[in-house]
Amino acid sequence: MEGAQEPTKSALKKAEKAAKMAAQKAEKAAKQTSVAVVGGKKADDLIGITVSKADNFPQWYQEVVLKAELIEYYTEISGFFIMRPATMHIWNTIRRWFQERIEALGVEETNFPMFLSSKSLEKEKEHVEGFAPELAWVTKAGDKDLEVPVAVRPTSEAVMYPYYSKWIRSHRDLPFRLNQWNSVVRWEAKQTTPFLRAREFLWQEGHTAHLTEELAGEEVLQILELYAGVYEQLLAVPVVRGRKTEAEKFAGGYYTTTVEGYIPSNGRGIQGATSHCLGQNFSKMFDITVEDPAEKGKHIHVWQNSWGLSTRVIGVMVMIHGDDKGLVLPPRIAKIQTILIPVGLTAKMTAEEKEKHLKQVDELFFTLKKAGVRAEVDLRDGYTPAWKFNDWELKGVPLRLEFGPKDAAKDVVSYARRDTGEKGTIPIAELAIKVPELFETIQAAMYAKAEASFREHRRQITSWDDVVPALDAKDVVLIPHCLVPDCEDAIKKLTTGNTEELPDTPEGQKAPSMGMKSLCIPFEQPEGLVKGETKCLRPDCTRLAEQWCMFGRSY
Amino acid sequence: MEGAQEPTKSALKKAEKAAKMAAQKAEKAAKQTSVAVVGGKKADDLIGITVSKADNFPQWYQEVVLKAELIEYYTEISGFFIMRPATMHIWNTIRRWFQERIEALGVEETNFPMFLSSKSLEKEKEHVEGFAPELAWVTKAGDKDLEVPVAVRPTSEAVMYPYYSKWIRSHRDLPFRLNQWNSVVRWEAKQTTPFLRAREFLWQEGHTAHLTEELAGEEVLQILELYAGVYEQLLAVPVVRGRKTEAEKFAGGYYTTTVEGYIPSNGRGIQGATSHCLGQNFSKMFDITVEDPAEKGKHIHVWQNSWGLSTRVIGVMVMIHGDDKGLVLPPRIAKIQTILIPVGLTAKMTAEEKEKHLKQVDELFFTLKKAGVRAEVDLRDGYTPAWKFNDWELKGVPLRLEFGPKDAAKDVVSYARRDTGEKGTIPIAELAIKVPELFETIQAAMYAKAEASFREHRRQITSWDDVVPALDAKDVVLIPHCLVPDCEDAIKKLTTGNTEELPDTPEGQKAPSMGMKSLCIPFEQPEGLVKGETKCLRPDCTRLAEQWCMFGRSY
Repeated sequence: MEGAQEPTKSALKKAEKAAKMAAQKAEKAAKQTSVAVVGGKKADDLIGITVSKADNFPQWYQEVVLKAELIEYYTEISGFFIMRPATMHIWNTIRRWFQERIEALGVEETNFPMFLSSKSLEKEKEHVEGFAPELAWVTKAGDKDLEVPVAVRPTSEAVMYPYYSKWIRSHRDLPFRLNQWNSVVRWEAKQTTPFLRAREFLWQEGHTAHLTEELAGEEVLQILELYAGVYEQLLAVPVVRGRKTEAEKFAGGYYTTTVEGYIPSNGRGIQGATSHCLGQNFSKMFDITVEDPAEKGKHIHVWQNSWGLSTRVIGVMVMIHGDDKGLVLPPRIAKIQTILIPVGLTAKMTAEEKEKHLKQVDELFFTLKKAGVRAEVDLRDGYTPAWKFNDWELKGVPLRLEFGPKDAAKDVVSYARRDTGEKGTIPIAELAIKVPELFETIQAAMYAKAEASFREHRRQITSWDDVVPALDAKDVVLIPHCLVPDCEDAIKKLTTGNTEELPDTPEGQKAPSMGMKSLCIPFEQPEGLVKGETKCLRPDCTRLAEQWCMFGRSY
Repeated sequence: MEGAQEPTKSALKKAEKAAKMAAQKAEKAAKQTSVAVVGGKKADDLIGITVSKADNFPQWYQEVVLKAELIEYYTEISGFFIMRPATMHIWNTIRRWFQERIEALGVEETNFPMFLSSKSLEKEKEHVEGFAPELAWVTKAGDKDLEVPVAVRPTSEAVMYPYYSKWIRSHRDLPFRLNQWNSVVRWEAKQTTPFLRAREFLWQEGHTAHLTEELAGEEVLQILELYAGVYEQLLAVPVVRGRKTEAEKFAGGYYTTTVEGYIPSNGRGIQGATSHCLGQNFSKMFDITVEDPAEKGKHIHVWQNSWGLSTRVIGVMVMIHGDDKGLVLPPRIAKIQTILIPVGLTAKMTAEEKEKHLKQVDELFFTLKKAGVRAEVDLRDGYTPAWKFNDWELKGVPLRLEFGPKDAAKDVVSYARRDTGEKGTIPIAELAIKVPELFETIQAAMYAKAEASFREHRRQITSWDDVVPALDAKDVVLIPHCLVPDCEDAIKKLTTGNTEELPDTPEGQKAPSMGMKSLCIPFEQPEGLVKGETKCLRPDCTRLAEQWCMFGRSY
């Protein structure tokens, strides 16, 4: 028996030694370069991020989502991504938060089929034209052709509204509010990016009906505020609330409200989530009416809203908070909020000393768990503490706790914040209080940093000549604008650089050449625009400015 | 102003009167027939169940799921169903219950794309052949043909396992356990039935990998026990735990365990949920190996499981508990557990008296809410209490609470149980305690009733001549069997009646002619089978019996 176990033991020891050496090498390398290099036993799949966020943002992003194990590329079919447990934890946290709040508003959950027939598609042409090029068509079942092909839903207006007409019979049925959590398919021709643009994505879609425009409008804003809450309170991402221009609103809708984010690394705006008032457009197409409670016999078409928030939010969060070491997660949405790593266990220590120390680590872990902290302990053999530090930094864990014999002697735990690198100690007796406090500090600091960056780069501009320099300085701009779609087109062309004159960027794309488009008309309007006096900022536009409009290069 | 409001007021009064008359009429009608008839203001869409469960079970079922607002038929594409809020509440309750328990086992959540390429399909032929006739193929995106068609997942083995081969690198990665909640598509050619057989259904699918057969086997049973828990503890549905025969196991798997239910109305067995050990079949096809921890350099293929529970469970629950008045829901999964209805508000009462009474109703409601009861109050105008009683009975609400001036005078609330019709009173002071207690009583009584029925109709049979009479008496049978697939086929043929000799049943189908198939080999084996001695029960079979096997007509 002993003989049989011998090779295993020695093999383990050998492996341990090799891992230690590799980790030490990696540590050295990490010190020598500005980029974190992680290495060790599994050198092939544990290399850290190989480019810096500043130098090559697109590649940095792709490496982060992959190596932090948020995403796996689905190599079988391009444009699809596998969401791994760290991602699902974030999405489920958002889901619970949002679900609780819409339930309180009276929204009920439903689940409609994933397919829609060409028949219902034909009902709302304006809406459908927007999605037609991206529809995935099922034409065969088994080896038989379907009599009528069916499309996978890109969104469910045309799937759901025929039933709204059946279910909504009286004004007493209003407000009528349903939401579903599902995935939709939009077979994008453009290049896909994990979370931001995928051919299938998870989202929620709310579809509601109201008696009046005013009541519909109230809900549009309630939901928009919840979307802002997902970004600001959970993801520590600042957003600007506003209305989309006519040119950018939802196909077939009445008006669209939006929360818009900002990616400091490339100065681009990004649509965060949208809450649409559909007006009576769809209720007229799908014949959704109730008797006017104020006038017997008169039928009125209901006012409808639809609103959706997708896994895109996770991509925005990654882009904003991540750094050269990898992912940085806000504590409120991190699956592992803190990683507890035993350190300083030297070869000189006796087995009893080690055991005693690890027992203390266990106690710390249970203290954290009891305090409701999502903590894990890293007891992996054969990896040095430094290697583990890098590994958990790569994965974005907000707080690292280290506990060595020196800490034990002082009755403290050492910590390092992932967001700032700040280090310190926490008395063991205060762990259950201080760690959750630290999470809130980190959460607030991450938001404050991102908010300052967005504020600094949101520039109010009153001279056209300042526009392109601002874009090149990674700003989004607030300009007085006439809000006419043609003018937006002209602005896009006018700000699109001549790519032939530009050198290739390190990102492999000619980013500075991208024209700007309108992001939103912010609800919070700055001063300085005089109605009937201030001109639209575009030089060739002869119209008056209606409002300050936020423009920028964008996703 | 007054003049303008006049017509509305009088119109409302008129409507109220008409509604009352209609409701009284409906009440009378309900008393005259054994079938609940619900009528009133919206006579068109509030007719109760029109057939009795005993007379025409299939139509009864279709009416119940529709009229209790669990389901809406998706008329655009046949074989698809819309799940309404009452259904989603049940499914989400099951989801939370199960999710909590698998998380405790260490299962993590993932989300894979809904499409699979023909390439990965080709890897596991035996498995794929089982699903090929039901695959929905996407061949076009927009107006362009796809270079390679993709199929909507019917289950995700072939979608997920290529990545298991990438992610599982060492025996330290085991057990490796992922689960996802999604919908799958199986384009059934057979007739579809809401919940039981649909072309798209919601489910969870767990996919795990283990180092040894023993470890995989342990998990198979842990999960099966959770599935039994969903049925028994949440849905008040008894199940028999067992193993599928070779003929009935999962395509490409090693062995399949199952929980089997029983529908008393037609005596059919129904597969409840299955937990499969896939053995090493898939790990060999998809090359999922780890180094043997006991022998350096030796690679072993992992042992895999997959397990799934679908919205089918809801259909089984409806079929078992429902009655001629409609749905009957177990309190633990009912969205509305109790409905509080003010009664006895006569025309003689003053406005103050009415107001005082309704204030008391409000207080009762808040008492219930505070006690964690999912209660609602029915304050709808223009409907009589009797009409409301019928309406909530149709929808299956487990407990009705009535509160009238007579109750108020005695400081009690009157109740009626949905499952038994039993009536009684609860002192108001005890409401917060007694109502939850009553829920547990109802839950237990519903289970006990269904369990007694299943037990009574699970007949141990040792003479072949007793088999068909037992089936005709709506039994499932336990017989000594050789477990050879050919013998199962023969049994099916042997028990299939000659349809031409039979009269049409009221159900419009020749149910008695259906042959029986094996449902499972129950883990709890009765006594009386002597290995090496007892013969397989089928007269022409010359083999010895291996085990007691449960056979029955089935879904």
